[in-house]
Amino acid sequence: MSKVRVAVAGASGYAGGEVLRLLLGHPGVEIGAVTAGSNAGERLGALQPHLLPLADRVLEPTTAEVLAGHDVVFLGLPHGQSGALAEELSSRDDRVVVVDCGADFRLEDAAAWEQFYGSAHAGTWPYGLPELPGNRDALRGARRVAVPGCYPTISSLALAPAVAAGLVVPDVVVVAASGTSGAGKAAKTHLLGSEVMGNASAYGVGGVHRHTPEITQNLGRLTPAEVKVSFTPLLVPMSRGILATCSAPLAAPVSAEEARAAYVKAYADEPFVHVLPAGQWPQTQAVLGSNAVHLQVAADEAAGRLVAVGAIDNLAKGTAGAAVQCMNLALGLDETTGLSTVGLAP
Amino acid sequence: MSKVRVAVAGASGYAGGEVLRLLLGHPGVEIGAVTAGSNAGERLGALQPHLLPLADRVLEPTTAEVLAGHDVVFLGLPHGQSGALAEELSSRDDRVVVVDCGADFRLEDAAAWEQFYGSAHAGTWPYGLPELPGNRDALRGARRVAVPGCYPTISSLALAPAVAAGLVVPDVVVVAASGTSGAGKAAKTHLLGSEVMGNASAYGVGGVHRHTPEITQNLGRLTPAEVKVSFTPLLVPMSRGILATCSAPLAAPVSAEEARAAYVKAYADEPFVHVLPAGQWPQTQAVLGSNAVHLQVAADEAAGRLVAVGAIDNLAKGTAGAAVQCMNLALGLDETTGLSTVGLAP
Amino acid sequence: MSKVRVAVAGASGYAGGEVLRLLLGHPGVEIGAVTAGSNAGERLGALQPHLLPLADRVLEPTTAEVLAGHDVVFLGLPHGQSGALAEELSSRDDRVVVVDCGADFRLEDAAAWEQFYGSAHAGTWPYGLPELPGNRDALRGARRVAVPGCYPTISSLALAPAVAAGLVVPDVVVVAASGTSGAGKAAKTHLLGSEVMGNASAYGVGGVHRHTPEITQNLGRLTPAEVKVSFTPLLVPMSRGILATCSAPLAAPVSAEEARAAYVKAYADEPFVHVLPAGQWPQTQAVLGSNAVHLQVAADEAAGRLVAVGAIDNLAKGTAGAAVQCMNLALGLDETTGLSTVGLAP
Amino acid sequence: MSKVRVAVAGASGYAGGEVLRLLLGHPGVEIGAVTAGSNAGERLGALQPHLLPLADRVLEPTTAEVLAGHDVVFLGLPHGQSGALAEELSSRDDRVVVVDCGADFRLEDAAAWEQFYGSAHAGTWPYGLPELPGNRDALRGARRVAVPGCYPTISSLALAPAVAAGLVVPDVVVVAASGTSGAGKAAKTHLLGSEVMGNASAYGVGGVHRHTPEITQNLGRLTPAEVKVSFTPLLVPMSRGILATCSAPLAAPVSAEEARAAYVKAYADEPFVHVLPAGQWPQTQAVLGSNAVHLQVAADEAAGRLVAVGAIDNLAKGTAGAAVQCMNLALGLDETTGLSTVGLAP
Repeated sequence: MSKVRVAVAGASGYAGGEVLRLLLGHPGVEIGAVTAGSNAGERLGALQPHLLPLADRVLEPTTAEVLAGHDVVFLGLPHGQSGALAEELSSRDDRVVVVDCGADFRLEDAAAWEQFYGSAHAGTWPYGLPELPGNRDALRGARRVAVPGCYPTISSLALAPAVAAGLVVPDVVVVAASGTSGAGKAAKTHLLGSEVMGNASAYGVGGVHRHTPEITQNLGRLTPAEVKVSFTPLLVPMSRGILATCSAPLAAPVSAEEARAAYVKAYADEPFVHVLPAGQWPQTQAVLGSNAVHLQVAADEAAGRLVAVGAIDNLAKGTAGAAVQCMNLALGLDETTGLSTVGLAP
Repeated sequence: MSKVRVAVAGASGYAGGEVLRLLLGHPGVEIGAVTAGSNAGERLGALQPHLLPLADRVLEPTTAEVLAGHDVVFLGLPHGQSGALAEELSSRDDRVVVVDCGADFRLEDAAAWEQFYGSAHAGTWPYGLPELPGNRDALRGARRVAVPGCYPTISSLALAPAVAAGLVVPDVVVVAASGTSGAGKAAKTHLLGSEVMGNASAYGVGGVHRHTPEITQNLGRLTPAEVKVSFTPLLVPMSRGILATCSAPLAAPVSAEEARAAYVKAYADEPFVHVLPAGQWPQTQAVLGSNAVHLQVAADEAAGRLVAVGAIDNLAKGTAGAAVQCMNLALGLDETTGLSTVGLAP
Repeated sequence: MSKVRVAVAGASGYAGGEVLRLLLGHPGVEIGAVTAGSNAGERLGALQPHLLPLADRVLEPTTAEVLAGHDVVFLGLPHGQSGALAEELSSRDDRVVVVDCGADFRLEDAAAWEQFYGSAHAGTWPYGLPELPGNRDALRGARRVAVPGCYPTISSLALAPAVAAGLVVPDVVVVAASGTSGAGKAAKTHLLGSEVMGNASAYGVGGVHRHTPEITQNLGRLTPAEVKVSFTPLLVPMSRGILATCSAPLAAPVSAEEARAAYVKAYADEPFVHVLPAGQWPQTQAVLGSNAVHLQVAADEAAGRLVAVGAIDNLAKGTAGAAVQCMNLALGLDETTGLSTVGLAP
Repeated sequence: MSKVRVAVAGASGYAGGEVLRLLLGHPGVEIGAVTAGSNAGERLGALQPHLLPLADRVLEPTTAEVLAGHDVVFLGLPHGQSGALAEELSSRDDRVVVVDCGADFRLEDAAAWEQFYGSAHAGTWPYGLPELPGNRDALRGARRVAVPGCYPTISSLALAPAVAAGLVVPDVVVVAASGTSGAGKAAKTHLLGSEVMGNASAYGVGGVHRHTPEITQNLGRLTPAEVKVSFTPLLVPMSRGILATCSAPLAAPVSAEEARAAYVKAYADEPFVHVLPAGQWPQTQAVLGSNAVHLQVAADEAAGRLVAVGAIDNLAKGTAGAAVQCMNLALGLDETTGLSTVGLAP
């Protein structure tokens, strides 16, 4: 089989670097252009020393000229840049697959977009979370993919079986602890090592985080009931990983076994989603570097709530792993090619 | 003023070590016996090298003989040992103040005790959280104090103003991220540095953590309504600190300003509880080593929930700081003596 | 090609777990028995949740019966157990390849063994550091391999070119900062997360660490001069990785360029050893999970010393990666099969 | 006693914040102006939330006008700014004590200054390391103090007794692992939490770090022999603390006991320097937040080297603690006022 030629825009950042890390282990691709904004002209090895086989690549500027001529283009760009670039690429070759790791095309509701992002809605692309009902078919053969946000990925997967099965009233509370790489590689004082080590903090509290409407959208497809989402992200002292604690009122009494059985059934055919054995709870270390999702669920009778906990690697299944998984679907490859369920621990 | 003579049982553990650290800065006390179980006979400096002024102290065995003859005895012991020891000490000197950092005497409800601890209820002592209505008076001049659990301390303080003011329906969800010192100093594989660094995990999910009934008890005193508590503790990669994210359904629409005003009012006279300025959210690093409590609150209109976030040092205000604060109250000293609101950061 | 059948003894520990992680990505092997000591009978998924494809394997006891019938057996056992087990396995099938991650067969000098380990010397097996002169040939087709210690691996590789080329007097000083996984998974108080986070410490200071004679042995093969090694290991707050700072007096003035050129030349054909471009210094994050060695060297004219810094993942190239690399050599496979030079960062 | 009025310039940075933290516990001072550069106009509480009692202070600009009228002025400023400011302050009140946490006035050798800092030498002020012979007297009543660099503080204290007693040839090797706060609070990509967690790296290798000539200067005062210093700083994943591993060739055979005795004797009267009991090695966690220095020493007969290991808190004894200690000496107060030997652990 001839290899698919792939370009990565935003290759000096965390999302772009992780896409490249995964592509280096993907048997069906050849890595073409690697581009950056202000880092264009630098050796990739100086910025991403872990990508040793690509160390001598020089970052090119992120332009349509440079990105043209590839079968797949991954975009890890600031908000608002993906749409025009994708159009320009398609005008040169309408078979190009554009996989956008940014937010521009994730939301269907223009009003929600405008409320949370403060700009005009650019549109909606097939949503890159194949494990939610209906999504996989839309991704097969797609020429555009909007990779989900990391928090919505794990929050939606942790709640979907309960919402879809009607086990809960969809008035959900999500508190998700994330490593710092989710905040990106731009130098900001509050993200300095000295500030984050030994420290846990909350941010975007009270429904203002931009991933809130995305969770609402995902769960809303699973139930006719009104979905409410209270979402609080936490920053904790680790580079990678998200642990999401998700709960909702039980619609009717259910045992822990019944709740867990619903989850096992929902994900029985999913290659990356794993409901842990009863009694074992997810931890982020077990999924680092992998595309795996670890889930567990409990029914708290006294509190009247179902509690589901999920772990992913925010850069892998939360971003770049999902991007590669969706590329595989778009190209008609085996969905798991180049992806692993084996984490790096300890 | 002659100094109060103080003994610390369990001085080789984290709670006992922190009590000693604080007592070393307390102008009104003299440190007497320091005792331990299996570590008796060792130099304190070998086990707690940060307590340099006490490095040459030798740990004595934890017995009534050794602990007798002190004005105050702090207990940092395994469950079930505090009651008999306290009785024995009082039989020798009925003026002795016993401050118990363990759980034995925290709960009023014998059935709840038995459900969560699986043993007979030992009784109830004055509850060492002076900031909750009614507690401070019971602690003044007390001869027994049950120091609260670290999670109940911050969860109760973060929710109390909203519950007491009727801003919320007391059907609360608490997700609290804790440093590892809360799990104690006993060698356990899952607490090894290699296991906890780069890792976030949930435990005690679904209402089974022993701090759950303590939160319920504290909030139950503030409202005639039935209190439900869904509590999930998380372990995150830091030694100290708890960040609690607490939410509950709004009883009626309320603005963020109104919610925050209720908190400011509730804690206006509290020396250790600080409601941060609007827009600033708690972080654990800011309270490390201090007795301070940092709080902030938001009203999420779309989700219909009030969200309060609080930070404490689990070993300080969450255990040893509260213990010293209560000792001050018991002895009639200024409540803040030897305690600080200044954290160690970065 | 039919797959090689491999067993791993000590599969619940860090070395065994890492061997399994790498073998899961090795196209030429089939994983047979996974065994443990006190953890025999447990699900592997409960102890190594990151090894998802093996989660349902049950640990068998570490006995010759269980380990027999495999082409390759990896041993991650306490000192003193490897020799008898290897003999027993060979007596059943003399073609079996035994790769020992322990120390028993690393040293040639019986007196050094006895001084540092306090027991009788068991013998010497081919030394699993193919990058040092002479070693690779001895490993091709070998039926026994002694995998080097993690500190000797990086210290020897960081100093070998300078010693072999006579750039330095072999009176070396090594200070190596290691993550905590090097200390293993046994529960010990001083390795608790609360003790190691926010903490750096030295141990085995003054030439008493058991890896000292191994470094001496490796460098001694490269020079007729007497080799002296001052080795100090540090424990720093991370799970994986070793950063070794190695220096020695310059034998004659040399420029940084000349020193670096000697390193580049020495490792020009090595697939895993990478001398970084001038001006770039090794960091452990860049090699996590990989078999890569990153090196850089400086000449400090004022101090009259050559300073070389090297980084490896202690569990990968420092243990399990080397083990797989040596298995490849022993079996006549491509040396790099199943191994990567791509690290997991950030 | 009337309180000394103190100003802190650079109060939004780590050094300035730590000076303020210590001053809040100093019974003899009153905190006056707190100033900053680009952060002037902000609430201190927004930038240093751990300094709760000062949260409502507003940062003023760092000018002579603002800093005038104080008895003591602490400077935590970029290189090159301290001299002119100090002169301006003295011209207004020649009794003002200026304590400079920067490097401008540490070196005596103008050529060394110019080589390492690339600018004209500003002069030399009394050197704020009272524990080295001769320094304390110069600091009593001083009106200017140059606070030492953090690496020189611990490296010099760890080597001084051996060099002064002639136990070693002063051809020293220092490898010092530091927390990230030593690099300051300016936002830089390589200091992001995602980059430093799980990572150890070397920098300034080969004698180019600016603290090298300061170590040489300090040791040079203790011996007529030529001093050579090979210094390598490491960045390890913690916020605070330096662990320095320092070695030098033994001048003649010496036992570990003899070496340790020389250290005990040298520091017998020092309130902050503590030589640990034989067999116990320094760790940074034990000194966090304190002004304590923990030392231990070994004699490695086989390697022919003395190895000393020392730990300090880089922000406390390494910067702000030394600054307060020197202020005490300058003002004729007890040298230990407001300073502690009790660390914050775990």
